[in-house]
Amino acid sequence: MTDSPREPGIVATDAADLLAILRDGIPRTRAQLAELTGLARSTIAVRIDSLTAAGLVAPAGDDVSTGGRPPARIRFNPGSRVAIAIDLGATHGVVALADLAGNIMTSESQRLLISDGPEAVLDWAIASAKRLYAATGRPPDDLIGIGIGVPGPVEHSTGLPVNPPIMAGWDRFGIPAYVRRVFDVPVLVDNDVNLLALGEHALIWPDQTDILFVKVATGIGAGIISGGRLQRGAQGSAGDLSHVRVPFGIETPSHGAQEADLEALASGPAIARTLTAAGVPADSSDDVVALARTGSPAVLQAIRQAGRDLGEVIATCVNLLNPSLVIVGGSLSRVGEQLLAGVREVVYHRSTPLATQHLTITQSRSGETGGAIGAAIMVIQHALDPETASARSFSSR
Amino acid sequence: MTDSPREPGIVATDAADLLAILRDGIPRTRAQLAELTGLARSTIAVRIDSLTAAGLVAPAGDDVSTGGRPPARIRFNPGSRVAIAIDLGATHGVVALADLAGNIMTSESQRLLISDGPEAVLDWAIASAKRLYAATGRPPDDLIGIGIGVPGPVEHSTGLPVNPPIMAGWDRFGIPAYVRRVFDVPVLVDNDVNLLALGEHALIWPDQTDILFVKVATGIGAGIISGGRLQRGAQGSAGDLSHVRVPFGIETPSHGAQEADLEALASGPAIARTLTAAGVPADSSDDVVALARTGSPAVLQAIRQAGRDLGEVIATCVNLLNPSLVIVGGSLSRVGEQLLAGVREVVYHRSTPLATQHLTITQSRSGETGGAIGAAIMVIQHALDPETASARSFSSR
Repeated sequence: MTDSPREPGIVATDAADLLAILRDGIPRTRAQLAELTGLARSTIAVRIDSLTAAGLVAPAGDDVSTGGRPPARIRFNPGSRVAIAIDLGATHGVVALADLAGNIMTSESQRLLISDGPEAVLDWAIASAKRLYAATGRPPDDLIGIGIGVPGPVEHSTGLPVNPPIMAGWDRFGIPAYVRRVFDVPVLVDNDVNLLALGEHALIWPDQTDILFVKVATGIGAGIISGGRLQRGAQGSAGDLSHVRVPFGIETPSHGAQEADLEALASGPAIARTLTAAGVPADSSDDVVALARTGSPAVLQAIRQAGRDLGEVIATCVNLLNPSLVIVGGSLSRVGEQLLAGVREVVYHRSTPLATQHLTITQSRSGETGGAIGAAIMVIQHALDPETASARSFSSR
Repeated sequence: MTDSPREPGIVATDAADLLAILRDGIPRTRAQLAELTGLARSTIAVRIDSLTAAGLVAPAGDDVSTGGRPPARIRFNPGSRVAIAIDLGATHGVVALADLAGNIMTSESQRLLISDGPEAVLDWAIASAKRLYAATGRPPDDLIGIGIGVPGPVEHSTGLPVNPPIMAGWDRFGIPAYVRRVFDVPVLVDNDVNLLALGEHALIWPDQTDILFVKVATGIGAGIISGGRLQRGAQGSAGDLSHVRVPFGIETPSHGAQEADLEALASGPAIARTLTAAGVPADSSDDVVALARTGSPAVLQAIRQAGRDLGEVIATCVNLLNPSLVIVGGSLSRVGEQLLAGVREVVYHRSTPLATQHLTITQSRSGETGGAIGAAIMVIQHALDPETASARSFSSR
């Protein structure tokens, strides 16, 4: 995921557990931290000193006291460092600076073509990042790392794009090495869907441990949070739903489709083709979203059916993963309720009762900067919480 | 998963990281442990003392020295504690004692009917466990916990069976409380497929982090290892593939099946029905296995087709999870190569290249005691490595 050897984190191994607790933003006394961790007060003191010296925590207001000197409280200090987040889509790019809580401090966006190739696109992103960072006036050491999202599969172990269908010239291009020629910090790369899932989990649903995030746009992909962690699979290609086959049953015939790949049925371009064939010309996800806003029954019906086809596949995913939350995002999710209604109709009918009794199916809330937020969260986890970020611990034998 | 409040583990939080390293069985010097953990030598010394006092580690033979006094090595001491493992199937039960490496020390098995209800079945298991444990002559404190596998869905947060289809009388029965009336130790319950996955991962494939274990018998279910951990989902029902719909495509019509549920097509009873309809009387998975050994082309063809149907669903799982390993187990996997060949045929054709380029599809190797080994591993992880076992860490915000 980064081309650099495992560098020492900015947090001592020992102190990571305290920071993991304080990162929820709630100030706590040393006594509360001792109770939560089971550590001795003396150990807590040493660790707090180390975190304070690094600027990562700071004294907060005093706790309500029952008499005598009020105990001092410690809080996380998210402004102590900065992450650079770069979110690259097929036709746009976003560069942002984020604090250690994943809040976007400043950002720039630009229309671009990912197919212009890695050097042109990354040169723009690097220049933009340098400009934004310089404007903060902060020293170089405040930068903890750079997270980059790309619209295609990324091999987890190397951080290289692998056979990305819409990224001409990017196959196995060394993104981390290219960026590190300018910024000597960890550079992490992942696909955009994983980062959308990571950002939405961290900022909006932090208490949910099992989430399926499904992005519906030109392609269809999923980001999987299981056991509280983003799961990338053995080669980093987990969540690739584009070519999953839709199960057509006896009651739900294949409505004349010539193939059963999910992307060929329920993606933006697929719906646009269906509409064009029905005499409503459309070309892209954006066209479909615009047409949906006209309220045309034919358009809404096509979207509803795409939602059902999506639901057939999501139903299998729900039985397999038993998430508490399915989030539908991506540009096509802006069509409104019909897509989600189609998904819900099939999933609640199809999945097992135990898998759906506490299941929420909802729309993405993270908005235009969702990808950048996820890229920032990836880097922040890497810096502050390496164990969680890697999702690879000692095997449990 | 247990009805008891979170008890203090037998390993101090601080020392768990050293134990996690030593549990691979390789003896190490203090210097090697310091290098692996980044901890100070003085810290290592304190933690080793605490683990030695608990009997969990012991001095090993001396390291090869380059001169001077050879440095002492420390090794994991798996015989220092015992776990009780209870594996309950539809028509059989196994009770075993295991050491801390998951090795079965002694076991008893018995034919029984899970449908006789929880009290009759658990009374047998408890009596058997008491007998086996008493025969070891070890003190009660050496018992670290009891792991129980049952052939049905278990709600993770409570450890209760939930609507188990073949376990009459077990719905929401408090297994941990019932067993703890006799043994005052942590009692953990999970479904048998999860435990098969856990055991096979720990003992046979410890270096693989992403595994899909598919059990094919009377029902069809999966155990999921992602990021090195067993993933149970939000309610503990992850891996329920019985009612996942098989995607029949244009090229692979539904061969006359009246429904598309996986279990109705590819389970032992489903193949038996197909064979009976073709004039080869069969009733169960065991009948199918026996018939397969006759080499009858009609039987082998039916098994091959069940493998293909299974492959259609596994292909979706592979695209979604990107495992490096698919393991096919359960009583039907004893039919030989035809089932696996059908699975391989479809998965390698259907899943994406990135997901299959390093994918191995293989047969379960853990044998008759696989479920008991998994039950033991579950309890051992709970006792020695609570963080990994729970798969629920602080959410990563």
